[in-house]
Amino acid sequence: MTERARHPWAWGWADKFPDDAARRGLAQLAGAMLGGGFEPAPPVRGVPAPPASRVRPPDSLAEVVAADDATRAARTYGKGYPDLVRGARLDYAAAPDLVARPRSEAEVAAVLDWCSSAGLAAVPFGGGTSVVGGTECARDAAPGVVCVDLGALDRVLEVEPISRTARIQAGTFGPSLDAQLGAHGLTLRHYPQSYEFSTLGGWLATRAGGHYATVYTHIDDLCESLRVVTPRGVIATPRLPASGAGPAPDRMFLGSEGILGVITEAWMRVVPRPRWRASASVKFRAFADGVRAARLLAQSGLHPTNCRLLDGNEARLHRVSFDGANVLLLGFESADHPLEAWMARAVELARDAGGEVSAGPTFSDDSAKLRAGEAGSWRQAFLDAPYLQSALVSVGVLADTFETACTWDRFDALHAGVVSAVTAALQDQCGGGVVSCRFTHVYPDGPAPYYTFLGRARPGDELAQWKTIKAAASDALLAHGGTITHHHAVGRVHKPWYDRERPPLFAEALAAVKRTLDPAGILNPGVLL
Amino acid sequence: MTERARHPWAWGWADKFPDDAARRGLAQLAGAMLGGGFEPAPPVRGVPAPPASRVRPPDSLAEVVAADDATRAARTYGKGYPDLVRGARLDYAAAPDLVARPRSEAEVAAVLDWCSSAGLAAVPFGGGTSVVGGTECARDAAPGVVCVDLGALDRVLEVEPISRTARIQAGTFGPSLDAQLGAHGLTLRHYPQSYEFSTLGGWLATRAGGHYATVYTHIDDLCESLRVVTPRGVIATPRLPASGAGPAPDRMFLGSEGILGVITEAWMRVVPRPRWRASASVKFRAFADGVRAARLLAQSGLHPTNCRLLDGNEARLHRVSFDGANVLLLGFESADHPLEAWMARAVELARDAGGEVSAGPTFSDDSAKLRAGEAGSWRQAFLDAPYLQSALVSVGVLADTFETACTWDRFDALHAGVVSAVTAALQDQCGGGVVSCRFTHVYPDGPAPYYTFLGRARPGDELAQWKTIKAAASDALLAHGGTITHHHAVGRVHKPWYDRERPPLFAEALAAVKRTLDPAGILNPGVLL
Repeated sequence: MTERARHPWAWGWADKFPDDAARRGLAQLAGAMLGGGFEPAPPVRGVPAPPASRVRPPDSLAEVVAADDATRAARTYGKGYPDLVRGARLDYAAAPDLVARPRSEAEVAAVLDWCSSAGLAAVPFGGGTSVVGGTECARDAAPGVVCVDLGALDRVLEVEPISRTARIQAGTFGPSLDAQLGAHGLTLRHYPQSYEFSTLGGWLATRAGGHYATVYTHIDDLCESLRVVTPRGVIATPRLPASGAGPAPDRMFLGSEGILGVITEAWMRVVPRPRWRASASVKFRAFADGVRAARLLAQSGLHPTNCRLLDGNEARLHRVSFDGANVLLLGFESADHPLEAWMARAVELARDAGGEVSAGPTFSDDSAKLRAGEAGSWRQAFLDAPYLQSALVSVGVLADTFETACTWDRFDALHAGVVSAVTAALQDQCGGGVVSCRFTHVYPDGPAPYYTFLGRARPGDELAQWKTIKAAASDALLAHGGTITHHHAVGRVHKPWYDRERPPLFAEALAAVKRTLDPAGILNPGVLL
Repeated sequence: MTERARHPWAWGWADKFPDDAARRGLAQLAGAMLGGGFEPAPPVRGVPAPPASRVRPPDSLAEVVAADDATRAARTYGKGYPDLVRGARLDYAAAPDLVARPRSEAEVAAVLDWCSSAGLAAVPFGGGTSVVGGTECARDAAPGVVCVDLGALDRVLEVEPISRTARIQAGTFGPSLDAQLGAHGLTLRHYPQSYEFSTLGGWLATRAGGHYATVYTHIDDLCESLRVVTPRGVIATPRLPASGAGPAPDRMFLGSEGILGVITEAWMRVVPRPRWRASASVKFRAFADGVRAARLLAQSGLHPTNCRLLDGNEARLHRVSFDGANVLLLGFESADHPLEAWMARAVELARDAGGEVSAGPTFSDDSAKLRAGEAGSWRQAFLDAPYLQSALVSVGVLADTFETACTWDRFDALHAGVVSAVTAALQDQCGGGVVSCRFTHVYPDGPAPYYTFLGRARPGDELAQWKTIKAAASDALLAHGGTITHHHAVGRVHKPWYDRERPPLFAEALAAVKRTLDPAGILNPGVLL
């Protein structure tokens, strides 16, 4: 059996990366959208050659540690725009010195012990899909950088069907997690865009956003308890549906991005596969009307599973609609009851806000049937988007995304400010470009808008171009009361803006927690603090 | 206009405390329930005489500080059983030395500055309804104890109707808060049993449990952002519907019980008054069937507003039903849509679990109509229960409650263990007694059970009796995987069990946060840490 190969630098499986003909088509499309000619860059030939490893592991860890170039190169970058560009150039200067793949909690502790005593940086690593430099530790941060890859801890250890919870190891990838739960008729239903290539531990450490557009939006909401190996020992939070006993311990580790400890397993709230589904698409001529519909739905108490508003550009990019209209994708799902009443009221609300139903509502208790139509197009395009980004990068397009959340009262100004700042930066850096927006999640008090931008890359100068545009976007988010991230995390890319967003005394408190749990300061240096 | 007077030691308004005739009736009822004779104790005559104040405030604070006996006595105790007993005895030995009533955030900071420099304990005080000794600071904890009463900060400062949020000062009591919001057609809909006599700041600091039986169960879920005055300065968390930027700063202060800072205001998520309501009661012969129904409802995705299961004793105590049956009170409410489909499925689930509908379902878009029937009885009895407890104490009954949460798979053993341990302790301490149970909140992965116990008090020995029974209950909770508190908080009463429940390294982390924000260690010493 040969293992399916990952692409060396692009998103996902190598065999899904578009071939030359497809990329020539994409180049033509890019030309139509952005003007001028694009063409596929010839691939750089050669193999990654990271700098030599600076450290030797103790004999006791020899079995779990690798120092070969291929293993280190594959764990050098995440999948943000700068990562793709450097990967495509065969630039692996930021590679870790060693990759440890502990097979047990005891081995995780042993790796951390060694790093603490030797003063080496330890960088927890799940699937390597960070778009914010979350796992890219500067080589000068420590005399040696050890990537702690959790991939060997990949099992569902226990399923508790009465409470609908499961104990799952942190290194379990999305599809494997669902396959293992599926044997019990259960599912986590957490589908970030990175689903196929990211892990439970990564989701928890970065407060990943998932499948549900309302209520259970972040992985935080699905987490019942955690085990975390810190350099000082293991923290196991109690398995409870809820508690009022002091500040919630889980919340200190959710979003800690590997600076306080290594999450090794968690009890997660799981559900039976939904049997009933309902789906509809509603078009809006004015984006503002779509925004109002999304707000009314978020405030309705109907709790739709899907409530994703795409602006005209976004609908086109995701092959949902090509007429420039704004589209609201509405969905409900349940393992318990049919959804006619829920969808009927949701559609009524959307119509009242000025929408016109363009597909559905369709109802089904056979999930396969619902995959067709605009919602089905969206789903596939959603999971394919990172492939598209990689392919666009390979034909010379500067393509990236960023996201935020803000209160409804601030959204109009934030949206106008962000689009204007990014458009100006694209003009300045790329001679023009496209910005699109969708809502990934909605709350009673505000939406989580997600932006995509495209422009022409200047070969060799892409990283400087990107940095300027990214800074303009991030400045605009903060200037208008948005968070620097709703679910992409902080990592190293967002740190300057996180420093501004986070209350200064909270930073001091977090630093005190870090000193307590990681006295040698070895864990993922450069992230959050 | 005369201000309505609070009872000196009992719950609530003095004019609602039962008169002698009513208390004689209650004594007869207690005799019927517990056996033997009870009679109203003659009230102790006199006025509270707390120990002399040990500290003098600086002149700059003279305007906001009081040291008279009545002011200090009224802020000595919460409303737990030991508080009622000591209050009734005119024992005010634990009184604070001074009561500060700051009128602004700057005055809160000035009080903390003075306490820090003089080494005085500062104890944040909301409505004084803690049942866990949350505001009772030992006099030997510091050379002086200053109660920081937030009662002067009692306004809704700002309402943002688009995002449905409001900025509210921490000292605002429940009814005032809803009256001020009501002027804008909005409400917080957070109704802990203490609602009338407790404050927003107290709810936030103790992670209070509220009105909604599912989804938005804790006040945490209704909080958008916080302002906290710490001895090191103000922490203001950003106003955001959600964020993934690092560990959530709000969550460090929610449940911090005054040890990290004084919460002065918060942006809260508010809603329009519900227009549609649906209500039903379902009876179960077997408690286990009711438990199963509650679980299926919690896991159904129907998100009922009310899903309170009362066992036979609890139904009787709350005047809901007198036939010994277990009763599930079901309710839905919405400002957006009629609720027939929701209730129909909920009733179907309850019937499938073996229930028999005993009232309703009734539907209304006029809330007044629904107050009748079993749900109406429950509502009034729920708010009156603390009055009943005080009255029972005054006729010689040892009456108290405790609560927890656990996963569904552990509930049967926990319930059996708790009932058996408390029954044995009541037998031992009181020669017998009654234990009842209800669910206050339910989650997909577990319920929050709430227990009431009654026995005969031995005059003069009540505190020792209570301590023994409370310890038996708390030990049983922890032995069976429950939390020491779902929403009563930790305070001083639950601290020994909290110390066992909380992961030791998390305690160290919390202590490090405390040292950072409160270097002189003045804030509410003896709580949590």
